[in-house]
Amino acid sequence: MPEASNKDNYVVGVDLGGTKILAGVFDASLECVGSAKLSTTAQRGLESVLERIERAVRDTVDEADLGIKQVSAVGIGAPGAVDFDNGTVIFAPNLEGWKDVALKKELEKHLGIPVFVENDGNIAMLGVHVAELKAKPRHAVGIFVGTGIGGGLILNGELHRGFNHTAGEIGHMVIDVNGPKCGCGNRGCFEALASRTAIFQRIKAGIKEGEKTTLTETLGDNLEDLRSGDLRKAIRRGDKFVVKVIEQAAEYIGIGVANLVNIFGPEVVVLGGGVMEALADEMTAVIVKTAKEHAMPGTMKNVEIVASKLGDNAGITGAAVLARRGTK
Amino acid sequence: MPEASNKDNYVVGVDLGGTKILAGVFDASLECVGSAKLSTTAQRGLESVLERIERAVRDTVDEADLGIKQVSAVGIGAPGAVDFDNGTVIFAPNLEGWKDVALKKELEKHLGIPVFVENDGNIAMLGVHVAELKAKPRHAVGIFVGTGIGGGLILNGELHRGFNHTAGEIGHMVIDVNGPKCGCGNRGCFEALASRTAIFQRIKAGIKEGEKTTLTETLGDNLEDLRSGDLRKAIRRGDKFVVKVIEQAAEYIGIGVANLVNIFGPEVVVLGGGVMEALADEMTAVIVKTAKEHAMPGTMKNVEIVASKLGDNAGITGAAVLARRGTK
Repeated sequence: MPEASNKDNYVVGVDLGGTKILAGVFDASLECVGSAKLSTTAQRGLESVLERIERAVRDTVDEADLGIKQVSAVGIGAPGAVDFDNGTVIFAPNLEGWKDVALKKELEKHLGIPVFVENDGNIAMLGVHVAELKAKPRHAVGIFVGTGIGGGLILNGELHRGFNHTAGEIGHMVIDVNGPKCGCGNRGCFEALASRTAIFQRIKAGIKEGEKTTLTETLGDNLEDLRSGDLRKAIRRGDKFVVKVIEQAAEYIGIGVANLVNIFGPEVVVLGGGVMEALADEMTAVIVKTAKEHAMPGTMKNVEIVASKLGDNAGITGAAVLARRGTK
Repeated sequence: MPEASNKDNYVVGVDLGGTKILAGVFDASLECVGSAKLSTTAQRGLESVLERIERAVRDTVDEADLGIKQVSAVGIGAPGAVDFDNGTVIFAPNLEGWKDVALKKELEKHLGIPVFVENDGNIAMLGVHVAELKAKPRHAVGIFVGTGIGGGLILNGELHRGFNHTAGEIGHMVIDVNGPKCGCGNRGCFEALASRTAIFQRIKAGIKEGEKTTLTETLGDNLEDLRSGDLRKAIRRGDKFVVKVIEQAAEYIGIGVANLVNIFGPEVVVLGGGVMEALADEMTAVIVKTAKEHAMPGTMKNVEIVASKLGDNAGITGAAVLARRGTK
């Protein structure tokens, strides 16, 4: 493994998602001075994804008018169970089922600088805690709703990784034991009920059952290129079917919040990820109401439920924090 | 409040349950040197329960040939959300809906020695961690299945209380959003699916629907005085209906274990409480199998799932630890 270096003040944070790879260069004050985005195209295989991560890192460095030698380390958030110590992705259902991928080792070979790998939910929560939560709560939970649902726990002011470094897999908390099948093989996981994937499936199934929606007028009957932003526009047009589906997803998120508040007693619950970025105005009130209804009396007192303002940048910000800490 | 004293080496631990009050005197080496048990009879009202707790404490001290002046403090585990700092029971659904009961203050008035109050699940887990888990795992979860389901989290070797001191309310984690109604008002809580109350309800409902069971032969059609031990005996007699109900409860507990492992990443999961004490041999294999099926790959590696040997004494042991710490 290449040695960590303190000579340069730049780090790169990478958010490896099921759909896209986002990379950003951060300076010593954790300002993002350049970024790049590529599609993941996980179906093309592991080598292709590794090559694209490398390209995203090099592109963002170039974008910031820097050379790779001025970057002291790279942090990466990956969508699945990660062994932080050796930088292996143990299992990533949203990356065509990656298993035991030595991401750190492979990328260090490609890039020639130290690489640190962490679960994407953990890293996004680390980013939010360091860059956004000014009050530095001792205990906080992050729920990141995108292609899947990732989570991150801050306990006693530190990222909680747990015994196998796999803590924070809140997306696979079973909430509806007889519910829809999840990518992990179980039924009724949080992610199978309230992720973008679940929301889109429910909309497509509804259309097949004859539900009327303005989405088909703008995107065609197959809803090609459907994005979270289209749902926001449909709701603002008064689309009752989309309103209903989004309210239902918000209720599931509210139940997820209540479960986590009952179990951990956080001071702050952060809602983030692409779905929340697009639909926070539409969903937050229902989430808060449902969470309050489902949490035990006393557990919610003075607990804040907030939508993250970092949005899609939470992941790269946290990855930059990880890279910075790794080089210290 | 009376001053804490170090002069005497005895403390009393009390486990205040929905059905019974258990009290034990513990010496300096955390040996139980006397115990007493009374029914709670919560339906008689708050004053009656307070008087019975006091009586249980005095009875157990007398049982150990001691006087109350030789006891330096009392620890109490209460079944609900507890504010540890001021010793108030915020809400206890299994105590006829107690709300904001100043248990510490009231009992100190009655007993004249310092009293420390904690949630019963937290305190049982503290007892197990201090007295039973020799390896002192950094992160551990306790699931205590009795009248309800209580939980306790050990984080970095310490009891995790959370922001409002209400962490560990795992019994109200929703697992089946369309499931049976829970005492807390929600549907499909862990406790409404797998507690003794839930198991007994399922058995009684089955009998009404015409299920055949040997339980009615020994206890009559109304199953008066049904206890967890009767279920164990029925299973050993080959009672297929009881086997099915207990397997189903064990599956729910397995899903609960998987949720907590996915979210929190403990090293050890402890199963305790009256139901586990009576039925550990019958339930543990199904719990472990279901948990492994539902946990994400990698999260269960080297994680132990163990039935507590402290059984019903976990609560009073942890309460004694709390009392001891409180007087230091």
